[in-house]
Amino acid sequence: MVRNPERRAALVDAAVEVLAAEGARGLTFRAVDAAAGVPTGTSSNYFAHRDDLLHQIDARLHRRLAADPETVGELLTRPRDRALVTAFMLDLMGRVQGDRTGFLALLEMRLEASRRPDLRASLKSSLRGDLDAGIAFHTGSDLPGGAEEVTLLYLGMLGLILEELTMPGMLDGAIPGASVPDGVVARLVERILPPE
Amino acid sequence: MVRNPERRAALVDAAVEVLAAEGARGLTFRAVDAAAGVPTGTSSNYFAHRDDLLHQIDARLHRRLAADPETVGELLTRPRDRALVTAFMLDLMGRVQGDRTGFLALLEMRLEASRRPDLRASLKSSLRGDLDAGIAFHTGSDLPGGAEEVTLLYLGMLGLILEELTMPGMLDGAIPGASVPDGVVARLVERILPPE
Repeated sequence: MVRNPERRAALVDAAVEVLAAEGARGLTFRAVDAAAGVPTGTSSNYFAHRDDLLHQIDARLHRRLAADPETVGELLTRPRDRALVTAFMLDLMGRVQGDRTGFLALLEMRLEASRRPDLRASLKSSLRGDLDAGIAFHTGSDLPGGAEEVTLLYLGMLGLILEELTMPGMLDGAIPGASVPDGVVARLVERILPPE
Repeated sequence: MVRNPERRAALVDAAVEVLAAEGARGLTFRAVDAAAGVPTGTSSNYFAHRDDLLHQIDARLHRRLAADPETVGELLTRPRDRALVTAFMLDLMGRVQGDRTGFLALLEMRLEASRRPDLRASLKSSLRGDLDAGIAFHTGSDLPGGAEEVTLLYLGMLGLILEELTMPGMLDGAIPGASVPDGVVARLVERILPPE
């Protein structure tokens, strides 16, 4: 295995592009080499096998799709109310819109995991780790609600993200007076979190 | 084009199997022929091109994943309360668990649509038609809530279905005292629908 960390990172990002554009079945070392603009055969020097590449994509997406610590710090200077939870969810939607490729690749990873038990186990523990960290962050920051509210909000946001990624515009006008996605996010938070 | 409706329906169902098992990129006429156990070349006599096949899969899934009218009729004999909405949502989850292949194929169709504007337009109008029909059914049946509640519940259920299809077990224990998916469905309904 070659050990050039920048080259490895560039190959993993190229693999994310391939995954979003072609789906899991299109993810071959040859396609990654082409997307990264490197000679054919390069990827196979960096990854032991395709599963190794999939695990490194998982780790990369975990960092790439996460909130910016500076944004989180700024938001945490605000009062702990439903408006602040809405602001956190809008920050998440902004990341979806700013990196559609990354979030689409994560959806493709989920579908690939439905076919590969080994990948499913690792992706499941990373997704559950994110949910548990979200619950710990929420309660540790004295935001309104607890494990139940965070989990239900997570499910509503997951549905909304799936719509935004695959069927943009599908929800326009579905909720009278609510813009998509911002107004819909605010309504989800209002319904799911306890009243103030 | 050959006109044997039973053969055509069997080929579309085989295509649904291929889509769920292999993803959109694996969906070729050759793969459909193999899955249907018919001679290579059969599918290309039934579908003008791959887009024609995709549109017929969309139409087929629309019928195949729908609620059973008899079940709906039985449920509509009950009082119009949150418990009845929960029962309708549990019927949907039962259909997901009973036809994982069909619902996984619909997810693959969504991802394929994110790459193909023509397919997206037709799938979007069929999904939006379902949502609008759901809202009309809900209000027409005097169930509690209106367009906003149905849309927010739709999003929460979409997230839950995505978890159940791709990461079964991921949510176990996330909400204290709520089983997955039944208890989670009941909590979603309780939060999103107006109190009685």
